[in-house]
Amino acid sequence: MSNFSIDALQHKINTKTKPLGSLGILEKLALQIGTVQQTLLPQVVQPHIVVFAADHGIAAAGLVNPFPQAVTAQMVYNFCAGGAAINAFCKVNDCSLTVVDCGVKTVFDTSLPITHSKIAMGTANYLEGKAMSEPQVQQAMQIGVQAVEQAYQKGTNVIGFGEMGIGNTSAASLLMSAILGLPVQDCVGRGTGVNDSQLTTKLATLEKVYQLHQLSLPSAQPLALLQAVGGFEIAAMVGAFLHAYKLQMVFLVDGFIATSAYLIAQLIEPAIVANAVFAHCSQEQGHTTMLHHLHATPLLQLQMRLGEGTGAAMAIPILRAACSFVNEMASFESAGVSTGT
Amino acid sequence: MSNFSIDALQHKINTKTKPLGSLGILEKLALQIGTVQQTLLPQVVQPHIVVFAADHGIAAAGLVNPFPQAVTAQMVYNFCAGGAAINAFCKVNDCSLTVVDCGVKTVFDTSLPITHSKIAMGTANYLEGKAMSEPQVQQAMQIGVQAVEQAYQKGTNVIGFGEMGIGNTSAASLLMSAILGLPVQDCVGRGTGVNDSQLTTKLATLEKVYQLHQLSLPSAQPLALLQAVGGFEIAAMVGAFLHAYKLQMVFLVDGFIATSAYLIAQLIEPAIVANAVFAHCSQEQGHTTMLHHLHATPLLQLQMRLGEGTGAAMAIPILRAACSFVNEMASFESAGVSTGT
Repeated sequence: MSNFSIDALQHKINTKTKPLGSLGILEKLALQIGTVQQTLLPQVVQPHIVVFAADHGIAAAGLVNPFPQAVTAQMVYNFCAGGAAINAFCKVNDCSLTVVDCGVKTVFDTSLPITHSKIAMGTANYLEGKAMSEPQVQQAMQIGVQAVEQAYQKGTNVIGFGEMGIGNTSAASLLMSAILGLPVQDCVGRGTGVNDSQLTTKLATLEKVYQLHQLSLPSAQPLALLQAVGGFEIAAMVGAFLHAYKLQMVFLVDGFIATSAYLIAQLIEPAIVANAVFAHCSQEQGHTTMLHHLHATPLLQLQMRLGEGTGAAMAIPILRAACSFVNEMASFESAGVSTGT
Repeated sequence: MSNFSIDALQHKINTKTKPLGSLGILEKLALQIGTVQQTLLPQVVQPHIVVFAADHGIAAAGLVNPFPQAVTAQMVYNFCAGGAAINAFCKVNDCSLTVVDCGVKTVFDTSLPITHSKIAMGTANYLEGKAMSEPQVQQAMQIGVQAVEQAYQKGTNVIGFGEMGIGNTSAASLLMSAILGLPVQDCVGRGTGVNDSQLTTKLATLEKVYQLHQLSLPSAQPLALLQAVGGFEIAAMVGAFLHAYKLQMVFLVDGFIATSAYLIAQLIEPAIVANAVFAHCSQEQGHTTMLHHLHATPLLQLQMRLGEGTGAAMAIPILRAACSFVNEMASFESAGVSTGT
């Protein structure tokens, strides 16, 4: 550990038996993981995904979401039964998964194998007032901190975050609009699949919210934005990103909603970018813009738009491969392979 | 098996607990794999990579290659010692690997754990005549057939092909130029890393070869092209693609050189496209053009340019994930999740 330097790691990467730079993004990723872990032997140990679930007050009215609000709770049950996409992807990629109820609008039996941290039966409707109280923002962020801490204590060094919350692309769009200083219409997309008429209603609704909460004010602070239009699961992810950074873990930034939480977290602590691996570029239209704003190159472009941390789970094998070439490959010298001219 | 229909598989995919189409490319991939395998339960069984190695007569002069010709053999030893990138990626992705000597310019000890199928000590220099004789083309293609057959007999149902051969981006560029009807300069790139002056020499050399063999003739037949400027490893891949198709296996098309072989194979049997999964878009400039010509969307864009089948090996987890969601996820009905409006 004490011998670590970025130059030494770069040298190790450069002298592997391959043309210089020929592993492209994997070389940058290996350098990043090794730097975060401060080692010439980067590793992915017990990768873990946390899915934060919560409901959004706005979703009860059906103005922004094609799926009914009840689907948030139904999907929590589905996660527990192993039937969701994130279950399949975690299983196939040998990645553990926990689900956290941050504020789903259903009373779950305490025997349900999730982390029971319900703050309220969903956020308040931000068409009528702030989505959360100030203490609720802190409470939600603390849920994220706790989830990361638990995984860390079990030995995880790479963690990704997903979300489930009917209506949460709307919260993400509003946060994006405020932080990037872009018109709401440039930040709103079809989410899980609104049709043209639903999209018009969604956009009109969110423009009203934007005005109501004066999100255009450049003086708006990240936590105030979160309080006004965020979600419990989004606030939890903000806390999770910050704590993963604090614990020197590599963390995966999933899709549109996770990246909206990342935008808030990075405003609070810009240094977290060092630990951030952008997993997948979502089909949700605003995500490309967010990634561009962050100068981020995602590992995967699989045209997914599902959330749940699916992009993060799909990226795990790529992180493993990046570590493996650093640890397994011979150097030109050790293999007796001639170098280029 | 008898109940299989594409419609039934598409219906199964559509009724999984996720917004319609929200797994993007994975949904198309799952449909393709299931269709090739004629099953509603697509699977990746014992995925396997074959690396075909051979030398190119042109490379002895050093006009097209920054690495010396001896590196082909050195890398074969490196594959056997487990020290190359393809070893690391196969290991981390639980994929088996075999290496085939189709014509490396070194006498290998028969105890070396490779398939010993040397046709000659490299191809002839296509600056002076045809790279191969007609029987050598057939012999090389048969090597590919045998490699696929062996993997198939062991239970493999997904196979990828890689190559090692100093100078083989030049052969691939010439094949591309002839088949796509593009000027040589649009098909020549930096390969493993030629500098500006080396690139100028490489281009001038290949333009001379292009004229010498009259590659511009639209009447040129695929096997004649292969004979004039191909490589033993490229011809082996042609045979391998065709045989994998014949055996109803899913096969992975790796980077620039593998895709040049695929271009030949598809001219011989256009139907093979049904079984082809394009794994990775190489940084070698011509590869994007090739993929565009084939209307192919590669699974990965990791900016690699290494060959060896590395792109194919990196794609294996994505194929596994595509199968896993079809087999593991619940349907809306079975999970009691409400569908969208």
